[in-house]
Amino acid sequence: MKENLIMVNGIIVEKDKAQISPFDRGLLFGDGVFEITPVYHGKPLDTEKHMENLFNNVVQMRIPVVNTVDELVELVEDMASFTEMGDGEIYTQVTRGAGPYELNFPEQCRPLLLMQTVPVDRAALAARRAAGVNLMTVPDERPANRKFNVLNRVDEVMAKHTAAVGRCYDALFVKGDRITEATDSAFLLVKDEMLWTAPDKEVHENLTRSLIKEQLAKQFDMQVVEKSFTKDFALKAEEAFLCGPRCEIMPVVKLDRRPIGEGRPGPLTLKLQQALEEYIRNETAKQPDRP
Amino acid sequence: MKENLIMVNGIIVEKDKAQISPFDRGLLFGDGVFEITPVYHGKPLDTEKHMENLFNNVVQMRIPVVNTVDELVELVEDMASFTEMGDGEIYTQVTRGAGPYELNFPEQCRPLLLMQTVPVDRAALAARRAAGVNLMTVPDERPANRKFNVLNRVDEVMAKHTAAVGRCYDALFVKGDRITEATDSAFLLVKDEMLWTAPDKEVHENLTRSLIKEQLAKQFDMQVVEKSFTKDFALKAEEAFLCGPRCEIMPVVKLDRRPIGEGRPGPLTLKLQQALEEYIRNETAKQPDRP
Repeated sequence: MKENLIMVNGIIVEKDKAQISPFDRGLLFGDGVFEITPVYHGKPLDTEKHMENLFNNVVQMRIPVVNTVDELVELVEDMASFTEMGDGEIYTQVTRGAGPYELNFPEQCRPLLLMQTVPVDRAALAARRAAGVNLMTVPDERPANRKFNVLNRVDEVMAKHTAAVGRCYDALFVKGDRITEATDSAFLLVKDEMLWTAPDKEVHENLTRSLIKEQLAKQFDMQVVEKSFTKDFALKAEEAFLCGPRCEIMPVVKLDRRPIGEGRPGPLTLKLQQALEEYIRNETAKQPDRP
Repeated sequence: MKENLIMVNGIIVEKDKAQISPFDRGLLFGDGVFEITPVYHGKPLDTEKHMENLFNNVVQMRIPVVNTVDELVELVEDMASFTEMGDGEIYTQVTRGAGPYELNFPEQCRPLLLMQTVPVDRAALAARRAAGVNLMTVPDERPANRKFNVLNRVDEVMAKHTAAVGRCYDALFVKGDRITEATDSAFLLVKDEMLWTAPDKEVHENLTRSLIKEQLAKQFDMQVVEKSFTKDFALKAEEAFLCGPRCEIMPVVKLDRRPIGEGRPGPLTLKLQQALEEYIRNETAKQPDRP
């Protein structure tokens, strides 16, 4: 993979030639949105869904729309192809652009679109999945009304750091006494042979969670319950896992040092991961190989 | 003023030669802090207090400390001098620096220190003060535990935009039913000849508010009450104002389209502004003139 390339407003250049304004509102205020598209063997997965999500986030932030979803999809594909990516992620960011130092939107703004490649060690992730991971709960102080991908991530940064210091894989946010989600993935339970997940309005958009709800759960005749739950409830579950385009389906075996279920990856979690892997194989197989 | 200069890690360069990494964590996550130092006739005001505040914010974010407060003060003075600033602000930003795309802190990080000049039209601000301004209340969804200057400003950006659309000078955040502060200034009342302000722990550090509490209020024998209050309470006040290093002491004459007091700048507010102007004159007069 050519790691020295970056796409700025649709043009691929060498990273050190990318001119980012020190007054870009992304840098000043986090005034922008992002989306991460996973790439498998050079083929981006669910690019259209990811770019639809990005587009919706741009609109929600009232950033002027520059690119259509189709154009964004094409740019992601160009980026994967030009950089000769294997496995990894394409990180896409749209900011409101540079302007005078002023909180209010500038009268005229030229949004900044960046695409960058992020290497991913999927073998290491698979090894993590085989063992299962432990989580630590942290209070969720994030704005309740902002469930889209804004570049204001300090809560997640600090939570992830707290988890790392506590030798946990990730932090699990708890609002009041209800579990919401992890720092960049959703948290689901298997209980009474049903899948439990917090309601849509309480969590960030997550394509893997949507896929499970709408497609994979049906393959195993699993009912999906969309209802928030407490940590005590989670500790009584049979199985638990994180899911998201970055971690796929990651078994959670401990929460705040107490085991969930039998303290090892559960059978339904593993089945869901296998079904996800099949989905990924099928979806990427539809795309032509790079010449 | 030479507006084309920027200071990067202590070195002053032309803006378009400043290399900001597209993977700087300020741009990716808002993973950094900022501080704004006002400059009057080329002389930065309260630089040491501002840089102490920045330093404390860096520590609170667990960003490795690179510069002492004294060094930061010297850099602000250099920046004001080299750019031949008249009236304006020096915007200082410290981020955790560039790293791989990963929420958790990078194992090694080289923080990025940026200083930039922001022009300010103080005559326009004075005209605003003469007329007084109107505010609009918005819900305060920001994390309750983060009262320092983090680069996660989307709440403030959206609130300021909402206010601008509603033809208001600024938005006033309300948490539950209690007023906290405006987007980048504090909100105070004059009621029963006392000054009312929300408690320290509910608002951001604000040097002008501290100066009023600790020094200016005493000049007028005014008792300061540090207690949160509702919008209804504010509407029954005799006077109201915003204060901060950017707007100084700005009379508020309307809240959600209803008048406060007599609907014009109040006498005690004006006296406090005059006392602040005297403070500014005295403090800047202590500094040597530029050769």
